[in-house]
Amino acid sequence: MTKPIARASATRPLGDSEPVSAFVRACRRMTTDRTPVWLMRQAGRYMTEYRNLRAKHSMLDLVRTAELAAEITLQPVAAFDVDAAIIFSDLLPPLVGMGLKLEYVSGDGPVIHNPIERPEDVARLTVTSPHETMGGTLRAIELVAAELQSKKVPVIGFAGAPFTLASYAIEGRGSRNYAKVKSFMRCEPGAWSGLMNRLVDMLVDYLRAQAESGASALQVFDSWAGQALGAQDYERFVAPYNQRLFSALGTIDVPVINFSTGTAAYIDRVAECGGDVVGVDWRMPIDTLWERIGHARAIQGNLDPVALLASWPVLAREIDDVLARCAGRPGHIFNVGHGVLPGTPVGNVRRLVDYVHERTSEITKDQKKDDRCA
Amino acid sequence: MTKPIARASATRPLGDSEPVSAFVRACRRMTTDRTPVWLMRQAGRYMTEYRNLRAKHSMLDLVRTAELAAEITLQPVAAFDVDAAIIFSDLLPPLVGMGLKLEYVSGDGPVIHNPIERPEDVARLTVTSPHETMGGTLRAIELVAAELQSKKVPVIGFAGAPFTLASYAIEGRGSRNYAKVKSFMRCEPGAWSGLMNRLVDMLVDYLRAQAESGASALQVFDSWAGQALGAQDYERFVAPYNQRLFSALGTIDVPVINFSTGTAAYIDRVAECGGDVVGVDWRMPIDTLWERIGHARAIQGNLDPVALLASWPVLAREIDDVLARCAGRPGHIFNVGHGVLPGTPVGNVRRLVDYVHERTSEITKDQKKDDRCA
Repeated sequence: MTKPIARASATRPLGDSEPVSAFVRACRRMTTDRTPVWLMRQAGRYMTEYRNLRAKHSMLDLVRTAELAAEITLQPVAAFDVDAAIIFSDLLPPLVGMGLKLEYVSGDGPVIHNPIERPEDVARLTVTSPHETMGGTLRAIELVAAELQSKKVPVIGFAGAPFTLASYAIEGRGSRNYAKVKSFMRCEPGAWSGLMNRLVDMLVDYLRAQAESGASALQVFDSWAGQALGAQDYERFVAPYNQRLFSALGTIDVPVINFSTGTAAYIDRVAECGGDVVGVDWRMPIDTLWERIGHARAIQGNLDPVALLASWPVLAREIDDVLARCAGRPGHIFNVGHGVLPGTPVGNVRRLVDYVHERTSEITKDQKKDDRCA
Repeated sequence: MTKPIARASATRPLGDSEPVSAFVRACRRMTTDRTPVWLMRQAGRYMTEYRNLRAKHSMLDLVRTAELAAEITLQPVAAFDVDAAIIFSDLLPPLVGMGLKLEYVSGDGPVIHNPIERPEDVARLTVTSPHETMGGTLRAIELVAAELQSKKVPVIGFAGAPFTLASYAIEGRGSRNYAKVKSFMRCEPGAWSGLMNRLVDMLVDYLRAQAESGASALQVFDSWAGQALGAQDYERFVAPYNQRLFSALGTIDVPVINFSTGTAAYIDRVAECGGDVVGVDWRMPIDTLWERIGHARAIQGNLDPVALLASWPVLAREIDDVLARCAGRPGHIFNVGHGVLPGTPVGNVRRLVDYVHERTSEITKDQKKDDRCA
């Protein structure tokens, strides 16, 4: 990205008036000319442009330097006809504002050097303004929103859900069994509640600030809930806090996406916690999930990202299957069921985006014809 | 274990006559005086006796030396009042007989040095007798069966399910996204079918040999299916082979346990593939799962192994919950929903086993009283 990025105006681009982008319209279950499509991790290691930048900067530098984060965010928008950008950031940096020492260790992934081990550790968590901790991300959203205003491509803000952040804060690093966090919540229910409530408060402030900076939608990633928790643990240790979070986010005038993975067995309960859109992974067919969530909610998903590694005919069949199961019903946002994998051919991403647009333009046209006949 | 282990007689201990052990009776959904209990990985790193042996021998040595494998198998039977032993072995050694070069690399877990990468690699897989490849395990079963005959404690044989083995054969090591195996099955359906069928053939031979060596039940571990696969992939790439496997195992006169994890969302389909008992993880309440599986099948599970890390009152509540949900219905085998974790207090395991026995003796007594009144 060589040209300078203009600063966004302070006014919010959407909300008071009828939403203009297909993506935001679909979040509100309004009709669209074609199914909107974007891909989780659409900016990432599979793109040369990203790898080139990543080679020169640490992960935290990329997240914290507004111009770099904006540049990465815009890479897939320049390369593909996606219907939304998602701000380049990561789930864990907001924890730094709570006093947790975060480092991205090459090869090992993120590490928290002072994880929460005892109830007292919850009491020592600090509160800081999102503008202080996540100022780079907020400014990056302003830059991207300004840049994309003329194209009418909205930018999505995001954050990790309370459980996913609490897991990291307690485990200190990636985990296979989540034994520490699951023991903590069982054995220290008071401290667990304190931790989750502090995370909810932080997240509401941070996500509100993202909307105020120009995000047209907000996605909450509960990436670890379903990996770690059964339905009963989710009900007791997660649902009350997610409900409070989504309820508070409901007062912000942009749509909210409630995304999780591994929760297909209890997706109805996950959906009940809130959000305008429920983001689903690839573990069950999307029509089954949508039925269990209820058609009064929009849905986002659910192509298996592994399908993007296959040849085009194989990939096209799986795209067709998702589209057929949604049958042009308003409120479907096409996406992968989890992030795009490193090694994904760029050509497959481009073709996917165009194909979803073409195929669903036809479906919409057919439906309009049907409407006319009826 | 200092005393020598006698060799098993060639005759099968169970099958022709009425099963005598509570565990096998429960597999057959026959009444028992109390709910039988054993724990996946009941022999393992949480026990000092195991760690002492492991410190002196490599993993493959432990698996292949019948006397050592038998000794490890018997450790939890000596320490706790469990209703079954499970032969100490691992899922991957049978792959060695197919020509795959397996090594347990300290810190990294198992590695296959010549993984399957192309369709041609499937054609080069070899066929060997289980007595040649897994002779140590088969002899260990004989030793354990002989040792436990007087105690009437049955020994369970086991193997990995075709998908779980195929994943390892293709990925070559542990995986997060299973991208290689999922790409292979999508892009090379013919070779995939060939691989899965060869695995089924090998597994039928190996599991039959285990029963002939004295195993009173057989468990098939599909530990990775639900982590890796959604319902549609399972239907297309796994179910046909599992059905063939369980159908062939049905001709062996010992009960078969069909265990998987992460499959709660489509457990009905998993159960349809076969097995006398369906082994379930901890992701959904056991009564919900049993209802979806159907009460015409026995069920094994589903305590979260993390609960065993908690204090006794917390653990007891979770045991009570599982027992209450099963309500003494014949055909419940109490177990964890996945293997016992390293670091689990031995005292909790002992207390769990005794508690399940005590509590369910009471339930059975109450039911008998009720029956008398009715």
